[in-house]
Amino acid sequence: MGKEGKGNSKGNFQLKVPKGTRDWQGTDVVLREQIFSNLTEVFKRHGGVTIDTPVFELRETLTGKYGEDSKLIYDLADQGGEICSLRYDLTVPFARFCAQNAVLNIKRYHIAKVYRRDQPAMTKGRMREFYQCDFDIAGSYDPMLPDAEILRITKEVFDSLPGWEGKYTIKINHRKILDGIFQICGVPQDKLRTISSAVDKLDKSPWEEVRREMVEGKGLDPEIADKIWEYVQLKGGREIVTQLQNKPEVVANESAKQGLEDMALLCKYLDILDVLPALSIDMSLARGLDYYTGVIYEVVTEGSAPSASSKDVAKKEKKQKKSADPDEDRSNDPTIGVGSVAAGGRYDELVGMFSGKAIPCVGISFGVDRIFSITQARLDSSKVVRPNEVDVFVVAFGMGKDFTGLLPERMQVAKTLWDAGIKAEYLWKEKAKFQSQFKAAENGKVPWAVILGEDELKANKVKIKEMGLPKDHPEKDGVLVDMGDLVLELKARLARQRDEVALRPAAGNDAEEKEKEAEVEK
Amino acid sequence: MGKEGKGNSKGNFQLKVPKGTRDWQGTDVVLREQIFSNLTEVFKRHGGVTIDTPVFELRETLTGKYGEDSKLIYDLADQGGEICSLRYDLTVPFARFCAQNAVLNIKRYHIAKVYRRDQPAMTKGRMREFYQCDFDIAGSYDPMLPDAEILRITKEVFDSLPGWEGKYTIKINHRKILDGIFQICGVPQDKLRTISSAVDKLDKSPWEEVRREMVEGKGLDPEIADKIWEYVQLKGGREIVTQLQNKPEVVANESAKQGLEDMALLCKYLDILDVLPALSIDMSLARGLDYYTGVIYEVVTEGSAPSASSKDVAKKEKKQKKSADPDEDRSNDPTIGVGSVAAGGRYDELVGMFSGKAIPCVGISFGVDRIFSITQARLDSSKVVRPNEVDVFVVAFGMGKDFTGLLPERMQVAKTLWDAGIKAEYLWKEKAKFQSQFKAAENGKVPWAVILGEDELKANKVKIKEMGLPKDHPEKDGVLVDMGDLVLELKARLARQRDEVALRPAAGNDAEEKEKEAEVEK
Repeated sequence: MGKEGKGNSKGNFQLKVPKGTRDWQGTDVVLREQIFSNLTEVFKRHGGVTIDTPVFELRETLTGKYGEDSKLIYDLADQGGEICSLRYDLTVPFARFCAQNAVLNIKRYHIAKVYRRDQPAMTKGRMREFYQCDFDIAGSYDPMLPDAEILRITKEVFDSLPGWEGKYTIKINHRKILDGIFQICGVPQDKLRTISSAVDKLDKSPWEEVRREMVEGKGLDPEIADKIWEYVQLKGGREIVTQLQNKPEVVANESAKQGLEDMALLCKYLDILDVLPALSIDMSLARGLDYYTGVIYEVVTEGSAPSASSKDVAKKEKKQKKSADPDEDRSNDPTIGVGSVAAGGRYDELVGMFSGKAIPCVGISFGVDRIFSITQARLDSSKVVRPNEVDVFVVAFGMGKDFTGLLPERMQVAKTLWDAGIKAEYLWKEKAKFQSQFKAAENGKVPWAVILGEDELKANKVKIKEMGLPKDHPEKDGVLVDMGDLVLELKARLARQRDEVALRPAAGNDAEEKEKEAEVEK
Repeated sequence: MGKEGKGNSKGNFQLKVPKGTRDWQGTDVVLREQIFSNLTEVFKRHGGVTIDTPVFELRETLTGKYGEDSKLIYDLADQGGEICSLRYDLTVPFARFCAQNAVLNIKRYHIAKVYRRDQPAMTKGRMREFYQCDFDIAGSYDPMLPDAEILRITKEVFDSLPGWEGKYTIKINHRKILDGIFQICGVPQDKLRTISSAVDKLDKSPWEEVRREMVEGKGLDPEIADKIWEYVQLKGGREIVTQLQNKPEVVANESAKQGLEDMALLCKYLDILDVLPALSIDMSLARGLDYYTGVIYEVVTEGSAPSASSKDVAKKEKKQKKSADPDEDRSNDPTIGVGSVAAGGRYDELVGMFSGKAIPCVGISFGVDRIFSITQARLDSSKVVRPNEVDVFVVAFGMGKDFTGLLPERMQVAKTLWDAGIKAEYLWKEKAKFQSQFKAAENGKVPWAVILGEDELKANKVKIKEMGLPKDHPEKDGVLVDMGDLVLELKARLARQRDEVALRPAAGNDAEEKEKEAEVEK
């Protein structure tokens, strides 16, 4: 794609996209599509199916689902007829879909844009239109089996991304354990959710600040706050579950007891599924949304989580004096915690809000825009990213005034390649000089050239040349083949090159698969 | 996905999607994704790249581009800030993108939803939210080369769809020829576009009706109308070009002469690219939109074009007396002609409307929703459509009260398969009976089962069983393999099965490719 700087508008007209939105183009869109494809591959490996819901819903479908954040919903203008709003996330449309179709069970994934009329902050990746990628399991099953599957999927997703393996942590907690602990500490029933929200801020604020909010902001007894602090510092592997189960005051609480039994069973399953090494049980994880009823989790990665050192806090407090925006440090996506790249949990009541008939659900939402930025930063920048996928450029060789450009011959060869499924281009110029054709191939980073010459054509021959070979390479000048063998010769070379596919570090590697298959078939 | 009838709403709440929109699910979404994937493969074969623009644009970006149809644009509510509207098509956002980024050349495809506040008619496939799939080439090249490429792409797209090969026609005309003919017949300059629109209706209305519209509705001299009729009946192969070039009054008109030269050159290229057999030069094709400046085309297929017999017309006129809606027979998508499945043309001025700097463009829009319906109807209904892509169901065999269900062992095997990139499921039930596990595999139409038994596990063996084999098949009871060979044995079987992929009738067939590669490498 050719470009020349920024475009200029005509007259007073503003040549731009709306605030908080963007065009995706070039190598950005190539990488993003590759990430989507990796995710989809994982989802399908676990039996996932996709659904596609409208971008707008009846406004009443969204009403009463997002609390405070409802003010961020984009409404369509009332032009007569139904009153509609753009979707705010993919979870509520999924719950509406399940209720409307009386779905008993489904494993569904959905990658699509959602809309929030938030104050955009591009530098922080907070947009008004952005992608979500959700995987959810609806249906009644034996305890913790779907939950374990979601976390296994989460592990496979991040392992499938280049540069991520071993560099992420799945933080997990359970609403029932958390509520039990709050009850044990003496938090009044009507303050459970608001204290939970305060605790959730511990990933970006120090305890002193959160304590102040609880005591001064929410009127909590300071002693109760200090008891909470004893519990929410707990963090670690599955031993945390045993530690808590060994405290008599904890297991005496029915909610905490149930939650810990869930968690113990989950850890047993995650051990078999090899997810435990990535897991951190974290009593300070609370998650903002009200609708979670069981396990909750979020994924953080190196550099994605903001530090909460006192220096940072001092900085932040200074900043807050200048700016009146309390959301300044809020991430793009409230369903994803600050600094996290994926988040979710069990929500057994949401579908029931629509149909009156509850269907247990558990799911996760991947913050694909943020995953995109981090992956891009981690990618080996020395790797050539091609602007398109063209494998072959068809070029005519010739010199002097009498050189016709061999346009019909170039078209004929391109046609033959397309018929065989090979990605090919030629220069759309009739009397094209050899040099300008060759340059077009180089500019497009096309790896192979098929070179036609008048003498070779008479002998029914054609040259295959790999682009960018060093000067001393034996095939620097290309290889002459019979026209009739062109497709087979090219396909063999392309198949060999395919093994260099960049974005497949984990399971399902094609090259590896092929080797193994070949072995089996011997 | 389990279902039980239609869902029931809670209280007065309306459990539905907005009018004119739909959820995509089940085998519908599988087929639609496969069609998108076939199209994308063709686009990439020709060097296409994708861009992704926001679903809403500044309202002024859309203003003045759609004439009468502007009333169908969906506006966002004014909630403070910029005034925006949902995109009406993908062409105007593409032109805005090119102007804004000063793009000099690009081959872009874009598959996305567009929005029209039209009277929905589901039975006719007219929706308010529907998919468009556009391929456009922007940039200055030698005459007719990009135009030829677009038509070659069109041929490859339809040949890639099951049941379409040889069953479609690309109707083509040229705005300059048409304008020239109108001038020759004596149509006043200010009536060119409105007479052109009237002619465009000849695919669904008989001449008498169109003539009446011209003469009575638009005040055209009846003699001029009759002269037009002489020309617009011309239809056929490339000989039509020669026929017109042999008429002195035609080539005396500069516009017609230029258009015919373009068309002759295009036919020469399309001959080389093997597109001519699908082409019908049709002087009655005019296309509704104003912005076309060169070739125009639309694709019709068996059953997609409404007949214009007098009987139908009588029916229609009778109907019109009852209904006041003049648009009743209008298709979903005005950029696609009535009864056509794809349409497009050259538009050299549109980008200039944004930046003042014209960039020549030519493109096509595929009516993918309609293509979906026709493909679905043509598909071999005896073919098993699987609800998901799971290849293997892991099942535990055992009987009696002491049977544990072998859950940890099933999980362990599933984990091994996932690690190897194999799509696998197991039943999320701890003490699952063999029969219920087997039934789940059958219900999911999963082609393979891996069967664990306590005795076999002790011997480190496992059984691979192909589902649905006839009773007398030698492998009806499965094949016992070493646990360590499970992945290789399964992969070999899956690779063999992969050759039965349904939706790849044309170029790029994987199985075929593999065979050829194998030959080459020998």
